[in-house]
Amino acid sequence: MIVKQLLDAKREGRELAADDIRALVAAYAKGDVPDYQMAAFAMAVCCRGMSDAETFALTDAMRLSGACLDWKDIGIPSADKHSTGGVGDKLSLVIQPLAAACGLAVPSLTGRGLGHTGGTADKLESIPGYNASLSLEDFRRVVARCGVSMTVQTPEICPADKKLYALRDVTGTVPSIPLIVASILSKKLAEGAETLVFDVKCGRGAFMSTPVDAKTLATALVAGARAAGRRSAALVTAMDEPLGWKIGNALEVAEALDALRGVPVPDVTDLSIELAALMVSLARDISLDAARAECRDRLADGSACRKFTEMVALHGGDLDAFAKMLRDPALKVATVTAAQDGFVAGVDARIAADAALRLGAGREQLTDEIDPLAGVELLARHGDEVRAGQPIARLYAKTRHERLPEAAEIMRGAFSLSSTPPSAARSIIEAVN
Amino acid sequence: MIVKQLLDAKREGRELAADDIRALVAAYAKGDVPDYQMAAFAMAVCCRGMSDAETFALTDAMRLSGACLDWKDIGIPSADKHSTGGVGDKLSLVIQPLAAACGLAVPSLTGRGLGHTGGTADKLESIPGYNASLSLEDFRRVVARCGVSMTVQTPEICPADKKLYALRDVTGTVPSIPLIVASILSKKLAEGAETLVFDVKCGRGAFMSTPVDAKTLATALVAGARAAGRRSAALVTAMDEPLGWKIGNALEVAEALDALRGVPVPDVTDLSIELAALMVSLARDISLDAARAECRDRLADGSACRKFTEMVALHGGDLDAFAKMLRDPALKVATVTAAQDGFVAGVDARIAADAALRLGAGREQLTDEIDPLAGVELLARHGDEVRAGQPIARLYAKTRHERLPEAAEIMRGAFSLSSTPPSAARSIIEAVN
Repeated sequence: MIVKQLLDAKREGRELAADDIRALVAAYAKGDVPDYQMAAFAMAVCCRGMSDAETFALTDAMRLSGACLDWKDIGIPSADKHSTGGVGDKLSLVIQPLAAACGLAVPSLTGRGLGHTGGTADKLESIPGYNASLSLEDFRRVVARCGVSMTVQTPEICPADKKLYALRDVTGTVPSIPLIVASILSKKLAEGAETLVFDVKCGRGAFMSTPVDAKTLATALVAGARAAGRRSAALVTAMDEPLGWKIGNALEVAEALDALRGVPVPDVTDLSIELAALMVSLARDISLDAARAECRDRLADGSACRKFTEMVALHGGDLDAFAKMLRDPALKVATVTAAQDGFVAGVDARIAADAALRLGAGREQLTDEIDPLAGVELLARHGDEVRAGQPIARLYAKTRHERLPEAAEIMRGAFSLSSTPPSAARSIIEAVN
Repeated sequence: MIVKQLLDAKREGRELAADDIRALVAAYAKGDVPDYQMAAFAMAVCCRGMSDAETFALTDAMRLSGACLDWKDIGIPSADKHSTGGVGDKLSLVIQPLAAACGLAVPSLTGRGLGHTGGTADKLESIPGYNASLSLEDFRRVVARCGVSMTVQTPEICPADKKLYALRDVTGTVPSIPLIVASILSKKLAEGAETLVFDVKCGRGAFMSTPVDAKTLATALVAGARAAGRRSAALVTAMDEPLGWKIGNALEVAEALDALRGVPVPDVTDLSIELAALMVSLARDISLDAARAECRDRLADGSACRKFTEMVALHGGDLDAFAKMLRDPALKVATVTAAQDGFVAGVDARIAADAALRLGAGREQLTDEIDPLAGVELLARHGDEVRAGQPIARLYAKTRHERLPEAAEIMRGAFSLSSTPPSAARSIIEAVN
């Protein structure tokens, strides 16, 4: 493999041989190919695209750059769900224990948040004591004990992806379907679950803004997972408005606990059942209807919630301390009220995320400290009728509470009110099987 | 200017603001923009192109990254000719003194060779004592004394181009018209001549292989030079076969001396007159016919040759020692003979260059030592009738003479023979005014 020749070929839009792509990634991971050549490669891929065969070779090369797990010896079907990231997206906290309660092993390597989307690991770490940085050995032990573990991807998994992702972030080469597919899929394949379900978010608060792009990504993820011998399906779901009522780390854990305890949370409960049912139906070869019914039962009988509390305990988390933390007297609150009478026509997920980010619910830079208590709670959602002066959102902050007025002003702009009731919002846009 | 935003915009094919391009180049030259971002930028430009306005901003930013000369105080019109590089292309050695003999100041910053095309500086350095690395001050002094100086571009000229060119070379981002134009033109604009004539080579032995690409480049160079307030024109000329009889540094100087002394050298004499006449006609505002006549006179009366010998002396070169060197007893020779009777239908410039390169006439890597005596002499050219066993090329080498058999084998493959006379070859494909 001569890197310059690969760059020439990709610049001209020619298809690269799988072996050349594998050699390139392996050399990059070892440090034998410098960042400037890889940056040129990533930009050429952004501009010229990649065939399915090239994307698969790239995915596989990144997977093989690190440790690859498998769960054959665990004796039950394994499955994981991956979301492309949204605002108020606490679905993993509900889905993974729910799927485990339905008899699956759910080894879930998650991420931290950057920018406007939250990270599951950050949310879980808002539970006092929760260790979201398990070794692969402890991860395997927790999955074996209670069927589910959620922890941050370790450095052993896909180091080539980690290196390339950081480079793409600073070279304008993030938005490329083949590069996104390879990045997501290499990690999920290395994680080793036999069934992979993808929740591809679409809309103002998501990475993919149009249904066409989202479907393209969903289709490519499912095709890639299947090419690697996994069972797979995807849903394209709406991300124009926040999921549920709450945005923020501890706030979202609290809301996920509500859903796990059987309190119906708008969007969250229904979408969690749909996605968990997809996992169960694929992993256990049963009908989707039967899987849905089983998921509803496991929520209703408390077993999904018990899986969650068991997992939290095995990770060292203390849910009593968590409940107490939510009542922290140092937590400051601001309220946003409706400026006029009307119906909530929409709550802009991106703006709501910006308000939460301003309060310290997320990171603007990787080194930023998170305030686990910071966030936004909606008091009115899509379609609700409100009166002028009525509270429509509440904002919380502890360490950066001086920003509450500014964040409240931002949050006010997230609401659009109309004089007539809006049409209902769809949460599932399309299923990709 | 935020680099990531510029990369996003160029990746999406949007036009960048001139100020943003200037800021990017300035920051790159200072080391504030890392190579990996510039590599991604260069690849995006390769894939998405640049408007004329963007190309001009890039050119100007690179020009302004270093010293900018001007020749207003010299009292005569200034002009320079630039060739995109060919095989056996010793035209500069004839044209620049010829134009000086016609009353122009010819400040000519030249390059060294890499790969299959030779560099004018390397050719001149084959003259014992010739200093092709003058300071800008000495360069100016030689031009003032005899009207012409040819020396290697100093580090003060276009440092941003030097840095970007080295990066493009290793990131598969060389073949992009806007990047090529900016690289060539920034240096020629910084050099400061009021008239710029371009010889854009086209064919198997050139960087541009098709007339369409060559014309696009020629048109862009002329438009860019004019946008910067210079007088400019270009010729697209054939580079399927070597120019003249000889390839190699000392060999080409010897052949240029022949042409300067009035010996008609095929292609070389006629093309030199055409290109020098273009310079003279533009710089002095006279008709092309009058300029051609004057150039022929200056060759015939020996004044062009005197300019050359004067310039060589001012650079410290010794032409007597050069003539003696050509008779070096350590110089070894090999001969290629015709395998059959026939007509020479073509001599592949690229293959001939490879044979010369193998003997040490050029550099495969920047650090390679050149053998000034190494090279190839054609004994038969396009259209010549040859007999089986007749010598058709002679190869010369001193330091790497053990490679002569191998190089002769390569050179044999450069000739194509046919049983019928081939149609005549054109040397000028198109004029771009």
